[in-house]
Amino acid sequence: MEQTEWNELVQQVLGQIFIELEASGRHVHVTKEQAQALFGHDLTPERPLSQPGQFLAKERVSIFGPKGKFHHVAVLGPTRKEGQVEISLTDGKILGIAPPIRPSGEITGTPGILLSAEHGTVALPQGVIAAKRHLHLTPPTARRFGVADKQTVRLQTFTDRPVVFEDVLVRVSPDFDDRAHLDYDEANACGLQKGDLGRIVL
Amino acid sequence: MEQTEWNELVQQVLGQIFIELEASGRHVHVTKEQAQALFGHDLTPERPLSQPGQFLAKERVSIFGPKGKFHHVAVLGPTRKEGQVEISLTDGKILGIAPPIRPSGEITGTPGILLSAEHGTVALPQGVIAAKRHLHLTPPTARRFGVADKQTVRLQTFTDRPVVFEDVLVRVSPDFDDRAHLDYDEANACGLQKGDLGRIVL
Repeated sequence: MEQTEWNELVQQVLGQIFIELEASGRHVHVTKEQAQALFGHDLTPERPLSQPGQFLAKERVSIFGPKGKFHHVAVLGPTRKEGQVEISLTDGKILGIAPPIRPSGEITGTPGILLSAEHGTVALPQGVIAAKRHLHLTPPTARRFGVADKQTVRLQTFTDRPVVFEDVLVRVSPDFDDRAHLDYDEANACGLQKGDLGRIVL
Repeated sequence: MEQTEWNELVQQVLGQIFIELEASGRHVHVTKEQAQALFGHDLTPERPLSQPGQFLAKERVSIFGPKGKFHHVAVLGPTRKEGQVEISLTDGKILGIAPPIRPSGEITGTPGILLSAEHGTVALPQGVIAAKRHLHLTPPTARRFGVADKQTVRLQTFTDRPVVFEDVLVRVSPDFDDRAHLDYDEANACGLQKGDLGRIVL
């Protein structure tokens, strides 16, 4: 067997057992109307993200809390039905906003924040969360691991500072790529390096 | 039994099973000579820490890396034989210094940093680490849990975002109070609140 064939086989076998871990930095989702208000136009894709159809936009925003601010915050596309700002608990301390731990999209009753960019300013009445750690799985992968959409599992990391994350939300969709998503607090707590793998522990 | 007696009993029983979790923020240890250079005098205790004899000093320092800086950084006393700066990986990204994960005191070959305060400046040639998460245990507690000094264990947290930290270093000394020490990345990753408890999982 040639080296490239061997490497592909190794990757395939690893993919049957492990899931790639990915860290999500602070970022913003906006509606079409909010994109217009902030930038004067719709979002422009800069590069695709690991989840099919999702992209990092060329546009950046500043976000303002009562105690601090961040500039050049990433905006992810495509636009959504509701604006949402995903930050870590560390970011929250700097902004002066305590984000509840929520699955993406569940923003009822969450704190608001101010967004601004070159074309204008948008006050989100709610939408600031710390994203609950989660797995994106395709239906075949979910079947192979014996897990279902909305279930929670334990995720063991094979990283510099190994951790077992409990209460990790499973999301299953044919539109996904298999990936575990952590925020930067979690990524740093386990010493995550690009390409590190994890394993579902039931 | 009266309520206060009952509460004491509950605390005693919990103390037989659980260990209190504590987050350590970024902080600096200095030698007697470095304290003189930085402040013009020895460290002044502000308040005692959980470990007997250790204290938070009234003095504060600024720390400077190639990319960023922090002001008003805590200095812990008493003075030591070697200067040491304990930061999180998040802090390291802001400073532009990648701290290795090390037990306190093991600083050979670690990055250096610049310290400054009202009286002067000290360049540490080495000493920047991210403290390896660890347990302080008294000998009776260590015996009860069946663990020994320098062993590593798994630590399960009963927190908002529950986690099992693997590879947690055990330190045993009659000079300690029973306590698990995490850095702020780890504390935020598990959603630590003051007074939260953990449990050794072998």
